Amino acid sequence: MAFWNLGTMELKEFRPGIMSKAEFGANLIMVFMEIGAKKEDTGHRHPFDQCGVVLEGQIEMFIGQERKLLDSNESYFIPSGEQHGWKTFERPVKVLDISLKQPQI
Amino acid sequence: MAFWNLGTMELKEFRPGIMSKAEFGANLIMVFMEIGAKKEDTGHRHPFDQCGVVLEGQIEMFIGQERKLLDSNESYFIPSGEQHGWKTFERPVKVLDISLKQPQI
Repeated sequence: MAFWNLGTMELKEFRPGIMSKAEFGANLIMVFMEIGAKKEDTGHRHPFDQCGVVLEGQIEMFIGQERKLLDSNESYFIPSGEQHGWKTFERPVKVLDISLKQPQI
Repeated sequence: MAFWNLGTMELKEFRPGIMSKAEFGANLIMVFMEIGAKKEDTGHRHPFDQCGVVLEGQIEMFIGQERKLLDSNESYFIPSGEQHGWKTFERPVKVLDISLKQPQI
């Protein structure tokens, strides 16, 4: 579907504690995620860019050596190959995330 | 820079009536745009996906045969090759937009 209302859209469980809906195009994957409280990704990397924006809640992210507590209306850009991870706190967080459908090395 | 605060970031004029800031990675371009009132793109297409989310204001978009008035917290996904365009009204609009850095045909 071309358009999503992120406030009313129905999501499905992607991983325990993470609800999501994804759109797969020829090149891009757009994923809307609701990440539950007290979840963490301690870090990983991949050979393609990834970016997005926090729409509700707070999430701590690190990208390489940079670490930041992101509120709604803050965006992130993870360069290809850069180590990155995130952590949520007491409240769930809503994020729209975009990455490549297939690695373009 | 890895992180942007979209509320306080300084923008530059990209085209008349459109202020923006862009991040170029290996694969992706992420652009934060403030589009002025009463602007229009009557339509174009390109051989790669594009997507994004409205963060403030209202914008009318069409993607192929689908046309919608988008408010904040609504997202769009433009499949590769699909004709698309947009129109703003009385107020400026803030959009975070993501597309491929180079066409991946």
